[in-house]
Amino acid sequence: MSGQQFASDNYAGICPAAWAAMQEANTGSVVAYGQDEWTLRASDALRAAFEHDAEVFFVFNGTAANSLALASLCRSYESIIAADLAHIETDECGAPEFFSNGAKLLTIRTDGSGKLTPEAIRAMATGRSDIHFPRPAVVTITQPTETGILYSLDEIRAISATCRDLGLKLHMDGARFANAIAALGCRPADMTWRAGVDVLCCGGTKGGMGIGEAVIFFDRTLAEGFDYRCKQAGQLASKMRFLAAPWVGMLRDGVWLDYARHANAAATRLAQALAGIPDIRLVFPVEANAVFVSIPPQAALRLRERGWLFYEFIGGAARFMFAWDAEEARVDALARDIAACVAQ
Amino acid sequence: MSGQQFASDNYAGICPAAWAAMQEANTGSVVAYGQDEWTLRASDALRAAFEHDAEVFFVFNGTAANSLALASLCRSYESIIAADLAHIETDECGAPEFFSNGAKLLTIRTDGSGKLTPEAIRAMATGRSDIHFPRPAVVTITQPTETGILYSLDEIRAISATCRDLGLKLHMDGARFANAIAALGCRPADMTWRAGVDVLCCGGTKGGMGIGEAVIFFDRTLAEGFDYRCKQAGQLASKMRFLAAPWVGMLRDGVWLDYARHANAAATRLAQALAGIPDIRLVFPVEANAVFVSIPPQAALRLRERGWLFYEFIGGAARFMFAWDAEEARVDALARDIAACVAQ
Amino acid sequence: MSGQQFASDNYAGICPAAWAAMQEANTGSVVAYGQDEWTLRASDALRAAFEHDAEVFFVFNGTAANSLALASLCRSYESIIAADLAHIETDECGAPEFFSNGAKLLTIRTDGSGKLTPEAIRAMATGRSDIHFPRPAVVTITQPTETGILYSLDEIRAISATCRDLGLKLHMDGARFANAIAALGCRPADMTWRAGVDVLCCGGTKGGMGIGEAVIFFDRTLAEGFDYRCKQAGQLASKMRFLAAPWVGMLRDGVWLDYARHANAAATRLAQALAGIPDIRLVFPVEANAVFVSIPPQAALRLRERGWLFYEFIGGAARFMFAWDAEEARVDALARDIAACVAQ
Amino acid sequence: MSGQQFASDNYAGICPAAWAAMQEANTGSVVAYGQDEWTLRASDALRAAFEHDAEVFFVFNGTAANSLALASLCRSYESIIAADLAHIETDECGAPEFFSNGAKLLTIRTDGSGKLTPEAIRAMATGRSDIHFPRPAVVTITQPTETGILYSLDEIRAISATCRDLGLKLHMDGARFANAIAALGCRPADMTWRAGVDVLCCGGTKGGMGIGEAVIFFDRTLAEGFDYRCKQAGQLASKMRFLAAPWVGMLRDGVWLDYARHANAAATRLAQALAGIPDIRLVFPVEANAVFVSIPPQAALRLRERGWLFYEFIGGAARFMFAWDAEEARVDALARDIAACVAQ
Repeated sequence: MSGQQFASDNYAGICPAAWAAMQEANTGSVVAYGQDEWTLRASDALRAAFEHDAEVFFVFNGTAANSLALASLCRSYESIIAADLAHIETDECGAPEFFSNGAKLLTIRTDGSGKLTPEAIRAMATGRSDIHFPRPAVVTITQPTETGILYSLDEIRAISATCRDLGLKLHMDGARFANAIAALGCRPADMTWRAGVDVLCCGGTKGGMGIGEAVIFFDRTLAEGFDYRCKQAGQLASKMRFLAAPWVGMLRDGVWLDYARHANAAATRLAQALAGIPDIRLVFPVEANAVFVSIPPQAALRLRERGWLFYEFIGGAARFMFAWDAEEARVDALARDIAACVAQ
Repeated sequence: MSGQQFASDNYAGICPAAWAAMQEANTGSVVAYGQDEWTLRASDALRAAFEHDAEVFFVFNGTAANSLALASLCRSYESIIAADLAHIETDECGAPEFFSNGAKLLTIRTDGSGKLTPEAIRAMATGRSDIHFPRPAVVTITQPTETGILYSLDEIRAISATCRDLGLKLHMDGARFANAIAALGCRPADMTWRAGVDVLCCGGTKGGMGIGEAVIFFDRTLAEGFDYRCKQAGQLASKMRFLAAPWVGMLRDGVWLDYARHANAAATRLAQALAGIPDIRLVFPVEANAVFVSIPPQAALRLRERGWLFYEFIGGAARFMFAWDAEEARVDALARDIAACVAQ
Repeated sequence: MSGQQFASDNYAGICPAAWAAMQEANTGSVVAYGQDEWTLRASDALRAAFEHDAEVFFVFNGTAANSLALASLCRSYESIIAADLAHIETDECGAPEFFSNGAKLLTIRTDGSGKLTPEAIRAMATGRSDIHFPRPAVVTITQPTETGILYSLDEIRAISATCRDLGLKLHMDGARFANAIAALGCRPADMTWRAGVDVLCCGGTKGGMGIGEAVIFFDRTLAEGFDYRCKQAGQLASKMRFLAAPWVGMLRDGVWLDYARHANAAATRLAQALAGIPDIRLVFPVEANAVFVSIPPQAALRLRERGWLFYEFIGGAARFMFAWDAEEARVDALARDIAACVAQ
Repeated sequence: MSGQQFASDNYAGICPAAWAAMQEANTGSVVAYGQDEWTLRASDALRAAFEHDAEVFFVFNGTAANSLALASLCRSYESIIAADLAHIETDECGAPEFFSNGAKLLTIRTDGSGKLTPEAIRAMATGRSDIHFPRPAVVTITQPTETGILYSLDEIRAISATCRDLGLKLHMDGARFANAIAALGCRPADMTWRAGVDVLCCGGTKGGMGIGEAVIFFDRTLAEGFDYRCKQAGQLASKMRFLAAPWVGMLRDGVWLDYARHANAAATRLAQALAGIPDIRLVFPVEANAVFVSIPPQAALRLRERGWLFYEFIGGAARFMFAWDAEEARVDALARDIAACVAQ
């Protein structure tokens, strides 16, 4: 590829903060399987960032983080309430069902927002109570959603109140958690445990690490046995320091949020540059680091011919995702190329 | 820890070759999920090293590599023939059973060697054929074994001949594969596909990488669907380049074997230094990078008091495992301390 | 309950034909686990009825029959295309996902018919081909559907042609298979293997047996290992003769179809009696043994007060299902009571 | 087969008590899925027999009963302590691992008795506590054992005390539970909950039913969700009355124990008839309904030629199992034939 691409925030490499911490950690003998100082430091750094004595686990990727967390919150014969656009439903190749040994995802239509509401959760959870229906045990929300939209703190609180009322646990898929925090300008605690979230899968990879996600249990009793679960499921790193150290680097001085703000700003920059171009349309409000833009098919073809990579989602919208490394000049070039392709 | 430790080869960090390749790979936008150039280069490097157009997959750790490979070689109602000391039996917390959804391990007593024989495999595979018994589908061997012993090429060939005769697939757990190659001085091809191995799990982590193992299918038809299997099981890295690049570094100019030779030499060095010390005894022949030494309990206690870390296995033997970074002076210090603790 | 009820065809007891065969089988010592003469006779009777040298297995219930058959037709990382109303989707509490260890159901909206079309199957099967999406391996159709509607033979043939074209297997959930045969007046072979069905789950319980379903593989290579699969999954009866003998009884002289015709006639009888009553409406065409009737809520309440049991489906329609034992007088009583409750 | 056989107690048919109850239950419309009066009556009959307000479930067979009960008592990453001869280890084709999604059986050598001891349980449960080892959660004992031997009440109490001390649940595989009660002459309560058993799988099939086992939770909190678990696992009978009614028949007036006493007496009768025959030897004490007799290979061959069916276990012993229907004359004929074959 001849220049920076925005098809996915997974296209970005390892950020300087994560890299430096890995380098620092790469010294001498270190005890394996997470009994080392780096794992402790990373856990403590997350606990400090979340202002909570949470139980923290480091796993390899988001598929495993979400699937294992959900599996720990339900039994195989129970179900998970999720948005129709939830990544665990659309893009995990049956991973939640595999790790939970059969828990069913009950999906709710969200008309593109990917956001659940208390009403929809209640309707789904109380609609049936017979033995032939897998009783709901967990609700999962994605913050920001797969379409780049944010739940407000009030919305999360309302959902968690409904969950508590119905005896459901609340899980948050935070693959791009830092982007949400940066966008809302709130404290991580406010968006999670103070709002009633039981377990957070906090993304590291999309935020700038090479590999690794954190599973954070705010209710420690729910974490019982999770270490064994990770081990059995192939998610216990032997040289754990290399999964943990990047978190130390990212959380130092709030660097992770700086990166997230940078990524979000790039999305806003693109959105603003596209405003006013005729024949194209932002499909969803740009609230975090994603831009979904509806481009006429011929223009989209031309854009690809100019070397731009992007996915098409939900009725043909082109998706652009920005990471910690987004170059302003390149964002501007993309905007210009879109305009040119549409005008052509 | 005040000095280098030899409790496990997982205590070592990332070797210079792997590190340099990761650094090289950490440049610019790269396509995710293994569709990138680094993944291709690493696969090609392994294919070159094995002189075979094999199908190659990169996963996060050995638990997953072995469990997924075995799961792909049997159905849930079939079984896996393994040595009683096989890591998948003793130290994986039920991972093979989990990934295969219930395939049973049929273990064969090996009296400490960890080595299977054609006779024992045949006896196990043909002992029963009723519907209540999970019919054997795969044999797994570990090279070198968990007690640091090697199968000769002839032994592997004899086992694979038996497997073919019985309609069984042959899997090799090569968590320390490079140590075996370095010790036997043979070509990777000779120890694997030319000897009848169907699938190899080739260790990267213990050999000097931070994270990552390679699953190598010499029979490509067996690899059908394995990419989806990895995805569903949480073993598909989004930023795959960082799992792949280290292999490029390790395989360049045969560096991986230099490291393995270094580790093996450290084991030999310790073994030689311990020879002649009264009251201690090498429990297994030192053929790769492991030394199992029987130390009187009091002496073992004193050794721990001097700051040495080690596991005790199989009736009290202390295990020392050497990695790419083993310092000769530190090996000598360990030998001296063992002698002193025994003499005390 | 004071009189016969039509809430479900599961409310009926064991029919005389099945009972007599069980009684006949209950003599003396018989080899266990299906190696007995009754199992052979029942298998042969099914092979004769289907005019095909199929592989036949007897399992305990429909949940297991469908789930095991589907699990044998896909891998955990693959998917199953089904109607949104398919019993395996709506009423099995995650059983297909459990038995298959995570295969995902991809459901197609059918607007109440429960019938798939070649076009919808093709669209679902070819919509995505990326690694994050569980690739389709099987299509399942229910005949008659959960709403009592029939696929014509031509429709089944068109679906199977599409399946073959796409490399998909075709499974038929025939929980009420005899009702479909009786209604269409065709041969079992015509509705199954001659129309391209690979595996049929042929219902015994709803047709008049106490317990038991038959899984029939028309392609014997697909049955490989299915006996072990049944064993592991708790579906191998030790005293198999009691699962098998009822089939001998049912298939003797086509009795199963007589029962099915009787049940279908009861449904038609009710439908005809209800025709012309104002304010009620048949929600689906009555093609087999089910009647779905839309009754005003107050009338439905009154009907319950009169002692009638029924389920409400799909926006409030009352479902009545008829079995081999349906009494005409009781059907008429139901019709009269519905009319009265509506008129009240 | 020309005469009654004793290869297995599964060779027997349905006993008169069970048959009569099924016949009685086969009347009219009955609510499905266990919401019927027969299910209630059978549950109450078991509660009365066990003098305990236990939670009772009826499933199809022993494979499922034991596997589901064990799955409900552990998590996939935990383990089950069992005797090396336990049926769940030797004859279930991986069913416990399948239903539990990977829980590992930790087997203890019992030298043919099949009986666990508190010491052996403690040693196994406390031997390791690292993350690579699936931590024990349940102990399972079989009463009588697979070799026809009984735990005394004191032995069960001692085991349960050890379990409580170690935080383990105690499961009893009672496939031939009635034979144990009949042999020990104690109350069902004494052998189970009063002795500390948490969950009992109480055999119906081998005791004289056609199909069906009862899973009895003495601690109702452990039963939470078990109904859904049964449903998902294909073990919820739609016409449940036919799984339940036989229990009503069997438990009426203690008939089940009469049958068991009859079966036990047949075993004793054979054992006594064999006493004193040279060259043969009872391999295990005859304490319930099994006789294991060591017969010289040539004599065993001749015995088969005379039309006798039997399994060979554990180094060549012929096994004879007696059921509710054992005919004294046929037992005597077997004894005579054994004597003749040995003498020949």
